Amino acid sequence: MTTESLPVLAILGGTGDLGTGLARRWAQAGYQVIIGSRTQEKADAAVSDLKEVMAERGVAEISVSAMENLAATEAADIVAITVPFSHQASTLELVKPALQGKILIDVTVPLVPPKVARVQLPEGGSAGQIAQELLGEEVAVVSAFQNVAAAHLQEGSNLDCDVLVCGNKKAARQEVITLIEAAGMRGFHAGMINNAAAAEALTSVLIVINKQYNCHAGIRITGLDDD
Amino acid sequence: MTTESLPVLAILGGTGDLGTGLARRWAQAGYQVIIGSRTQEKADAAVSDLKEVMAERGVAEISVSAMENLAATEAADIVAITVPFSHQASTLELVKPALQGKILIDVTVPLVPPKVARVQLPEGGSAGQIAQELLGEEVAVVSAFQNVAAAHLQEGSNLDCDVLVCGNKKAARQEVITLIEAAGMRGFHAGMINNAAAAEALTSVLIVINKQYNCHAGIRITGLDDD
Repeated sequence: MTTESLPVLAILGGTGDLGTGLARRWAQAGYQVIIGSRTQEKADAAVSDLKEVMAERGVAEISVSAMENLAATEAADIVAITVPFSHQASTLELVKPALQGKILIDVTVPLVPPKVARVQLPEGGSAGQIAQELLGEEVAVVSAFQNVAAAHLQEGSNLDCDVLVCGNKKAARQEVITLIEAAGMRGFHAGMINNAAAAEALTSVLIVINKQYNCHAGIRITGLDDD
Repeated sequence: MTTESLPVLAILGGTGDLGTGLARRWAQAGYQVIIGSRTQEKADAAVSDLKEVMAERGVAEISVSAMENLAATEAADIVAITVPFSHQASTLELVKPALQGKILIDVTVPLVPPKVARVQLPEGGSAGQIAQELLGEEVAVVSAFQNVAAAHLQEGSNLDCDVLVCGNKKAARQEVITLIEAAGMRGFHAGMINNAAAAEALTSVLIVINKQYNCHAGIRITGLDDD
């Protein structure tokens, strides 16, 4: 598999549960993946783990590397941020200069611990809007992956979950939908960045459901094939 | 089928698309249904239509009646409100005295025309929270049905759509889930009334998807049967 024509992907906060899951899916799909972290050591450890898991799955050739968040952003074509909400703004401030002209995939969910099962959307409406506001119009912020269970992403098996994709630029949303499909899911154009509020709020609902059913719930869009 | 042990249901704004759909489903399931409207004439017309549709479906015996909104509320055990967001507060103010001690099913979606495909949640967080705040603690507000296509509800066929059920009282949510199941769908406890924001915001996302696919989309919860 060649990675020549594929964009280089950086995952900021790539050492966390969701970042780890996305890294596995995209590396396995043949993308060049850079794990970004606040420290080189943590990024290195995540890459070692990633290589081990890929070897266990019999995936021979992957292209992965470890960098600090800013260097990872500079080296990538498309950047995903998967840090906790409390670190979203500071991380984006750090990498902002290196993001200009690129797509930022914002995976942030504005949970407010300890009441993570309660919808508590931020002043700015949603984490996605906060990111777009902070980064300015030269960065195409695309909100995605808020409703995918990290545990399922990390597994190699099929995913029974759709992804809502919000952002102000259609072409950028489409590029992210391609990455979602590469990771084994369906992605849906879900409107402008304001609509990120829907997926972000839904995460707390899924947490409520997870507690009741002792599961990792997701959603699927239904009714697509009627008139 | 007997209606003796079943609660009497009123549907305020029962002449609209969603109210019509709920009335058909519940009447067909054997519930006594009161169509409420701002005028007796409109309620009467809706009941005539309902009887006609039930007759076409071969449903012999239904128990339906028409009243103005306040009288409908007084006569019912459980009340659903399906009016546009712009009429939610005034309708609830009108019927508030008759709602004390009862369950209000709030089906309101806070869409802001003309941009209904854009999430624009209200100051109070959600229409559900606005209703609970306005009605006080003696009314159990339960938010539901925001993500069900009225067109599908009106049909007699199977529904491929789940319903998120939010409210501060678990017993009240459970009663609404029973009504959802009677209407042919699955209902999920989705948290306190704050979480109504998730389902309400999701409606705009589904409107975006409907436009792309020329369909009436809904959602299903997935991943319930894993560990």
